[in-house]
Amino acid sequence: MDIQKLVRPNIRSLSAYEAKEIPCLVKLDANESPYGFKKSLKAVVPVETNRYPDPEAKALKKLISKYVGVKPDCILQGNGSDELIYYLITTFGGPVLYPIPTFSMYGIITQALGEKQIEIPLDKEFDLDMKSIPGAIRREKPKLIFLSSPNNPTGNCFSSDRMLQIIDLTSSLVTRHSSPSLVVVDEAYQPFSSKKGFLPLLKDYKNLLIMRTLSKIGLAGLRVGFLIADREIINEVNKVRLPFNLNSLSQIIAAEVLKDGKTLQAHVSAIVSEREKLFIELKKINGVTPYPSKANFILFRVKDSDSIYRELLERGILVRNMKGVVEDCLRVTVGTTEENRIFLNAMKKVVRLAGVNK
Amino acid sequence: MDIQKLVRPNIRSLSAYEAKEIPCLVKLDANESPYGFKKSLKAVVPVETNRYPDPEAKALKKLISKYVGVKPDCILQGNGSDELIYYLITTFGGPVLYPIPTFSMYGIITQALGEKQIEIPLDKEFDLDMKSIPGAIRREKPKLIFLSSPNNPTGNCFSSDRMLQIIDLTSSLVTRHSSPSLVVVDEAYQPFSSKKGFLPLLKDYKNLLIMRTLSKIGLAGLRVGFLIADREIINEVNKVRLPFNLNSLSQIIAAEVLKDGKTLQAHVSAIVSEREKLFIELKKINGVTPYPSKANFILFRVKDSDSIYRELLERGILVRNMKGVVEDCLRVTVGTTEENRIFLNAMKKVVRLAGVNK
Repeated sequence: MDIQKLVRPNIRSLSAYEAKEIPCLVKLDANESPYGFKKSLKAVVPVETNRYPDPEAKALKKLISKYVGVKPDCILQGNGSDELIYYLITTFGGPVLYPIPTFSMYGIITQALGEKQIEIPLDKEFDLDMKSIPGAIRREKPKLIFLSSPNNPTGNCFSSDRMLQIIDLTSSLVTRHSSPSLVVVDEAYQPFSSKKGFLPLLKDYKNLLIMRTLSKIGLAGLRVGFLIADREIINEVNKVRLPFNLNSLSQIIAAEVLKDGKTLQAHVSAIVSEREKLFIELKKINGVTPYPSKANFILFRVKDSDSIYRELLERGILVRNMKGVVEDCLRVTVGTTEENRIFLNAMKKVVRLAGVNK
Repeated sequence: MDIQKLVRPNIRSLSAYEAKEIPCLVKLDANESPYGFKKSLKAVVPVETNRYPDPEAKALKKLISKYVGVKPDCILQGNGSDELIYYLITTFGGPVLYPIPTFSMYGIITQALGEKQIEIPLDKEFDLDMKSIPGAIRREKPKLIFLSSPNNPTGNCFSSDRMLQIIDLTSSLVTRHSSPSLVVVDEAYQPFSSKKGFLPLLKDYKNLLIMRTLSKIGLAGLRVGFLIADREIINEVNKVRLPFNLNSLSQIIAAEVLKDGKTLQAHVSAIVSEREKLFIELKKINGVTPYPSKANFILFRVKDSDSIYRELLERGILVRNMKGVVEDCLRVTVGTTEENRIFLNAMKKVVRLAGVNK
C-alpha cells in the first residue's frame, strides 16, 4: 500500500514542524519567559484527574476577561494560539494572507488545511509593505489576514497606521460584500511592548480579531492561548472547537497565576528592562547588528551566523538560528540577568574567534 | 457585516458540541472513571511552567509503548482522541464512514472539516450491518472508517468477524488501488473488555489504525489520547499535528500514572466487577432493560426515559439522556460501589413512581 496515495496532495508536500529539544545549559531559543511559577504555586495536582475539564473554561475565562478588559463571551480559549489558528482557518477557509518573515505556524497550518497561502515580504524596515498588500487583498480576497505585532522573529511592531489601513480596507470591502476578510492581530508579544495594542479598536471593527497567549509570560508549558473578537465570530469559531481542548490542570494553574497580576507584571517589567540592556550590549559587539525589539527576544545580524550559532551551542547556549528565514541572523530570547551575562560574554568570545579565523 | 457569509457553508449548519457542566451530587454521565490519582501523586506542579512542553512527548510515549506493547514511533500523542480524529480527517480527507449510533465526535469533526459523512445504522443487535457496509465502502470509497469497539453509547463490542471482513475488504481494495480506506478502530473502552482487542492485527494490516485514550481509566482531565499505526501513517498524521499539542503537566502526570500499572489495573478491574453487579441489579428493576456492556457504562431502555432522567437529576444523580440517539434509553457510567448503590436505589424509586403516575 502506498501511503502517499492516501494522503491529500497538500499534506504530501508538507514537512512536519521541526521542534526538537536540543540539550543545553542556557536555553534562549524559544521566546520563553525565564521566570516560572513553579515555586509560588501551592498546588499539588489540584484537580480530579479522572473528571473531564470544564469545556467552557468558565473560571479561567473570567480571569482572562479581567486581564484584557473584554467580556468573557468575546473570548475563546485555545490549547495554545496554534490551535486557534487551526480553528480560524477551519472555520473561515482561505486564502490566508500574512507578511513574511513571521510566525511560521500561519503558513504551516494553512497548508495543512489545504488552503491557499499569500505571503507578502516585509519591507526593508520589517514593516508592512503597503505597495503590495492592498492590491493583494483586492486581487486574492483572502478570508483571513494574520498580522503578528510585535512580529516574530523581527521583534518590531508594525506601523499602527499601516495596520489600520489594512483593517479599514478589509472592513470597507466587507461592507460592500466584495471581499470578506478578517484581520487577526496576533498580540502574543504585546505585554512586552510600550506601544498600544489593538484591543481598544475591537468595538469599532467587527472584522478585527486579536490573539493573545500566556506562553510568553511564564506559562508556555500549559498551552493557553485565547482569541478575542466579536461575540458572533467567537460563536462560529467555537463550533469547530474540540469540547475539551483545554485540560483541567492548565485551566486551574493559569487561573491561579492570573489572579496574581502583580507577579506577572513584575516578570514582564524585568524582561523589558533586561531587553533594553541586552540590546545596548549586543550593539557594542563589533560585527553584531541587533534590531530594536518590542518583544521578549532580539533579532541580530552577525557574519558567519551559522558558525556563531554552533560556537554558542558548544558553550551550552542555545539561541535560534534564523537561517532560511532571515539570512545571517540569530534570535536570542531575553533571559535572566545572569543568563544574558553568560550569553553576552560568550558572544564576545565567539565573534572575536570568528574574526581571528578569517 | 454578515458573519454567516464569512463562514464556510459546512460550518454554517453545524451546532457547537453541547458539553455543559450540570450541577449534581453523583456524576455518572460522562464515562469517567470514578477513581482519580490526585492523592497518590506526589507532584507539586512538577514542571517548569515557563518552558514549552516536549513536542515529541518522548518520556510519555516510552511508557505508552510499554503499556500497549507497540514501538514508540508507531504512536502519536493527541490532546485527547478528539484531536487525533481532527488530524486524521485533516490528513486523509473524506468521505468518512461510521456506524450509528456511535461516538458523536466522528460526525461533528467530519462536518467541521467539510468532508462527507456516511452513516450506516447498526443492526438490531447493535452490531455492524454487513448488508449495507461493504456496498457503501465500494460505492462511496471512504478514506476513513471509524469503528468504536466497545461502542459508545451501546456498550457492546462489534463482532470481530465483521470488523475483520471490513478490514480485509478495504485492505484488498487498497492493494488494487481502487478504494483506499483506512480503518480506525477506536479502543477507548478496550481496557474494560474481556474480548481481545485489535493490537495484535496491526502487523498484518497496514490500513488498520487503533486509537486509545487515558480518559476512561482515570485521566480525563489531562486529555491524553494516542494513535497506534504503521510508522509511515504516523509520520503523515504527525505533519498536521500542532507541535506542542500536549502540555507539560499532562505529559508528566500521565507518565507517572502509567508507571504504576498495578493501580491502573486495579481500578479497571474494580469497574468491570461493579459493571457486572450493576447490570444484574438494573435487570431486576421492572421496566428496565439494560444492554450487556464491555465498557465502563451501561445503556438501558426504560419507559418515560425523559422523565426518569429528570427525576434522577432532581435527586442529584446525573446520567446521560440518549434522546435523539437511542430512543427511550439512558446511559449510566459505572461508579464506585457507593455511587452505584445510590443510583440503583433512586432508579427503583423513580421507576416505581413513574408507574404509579400512569
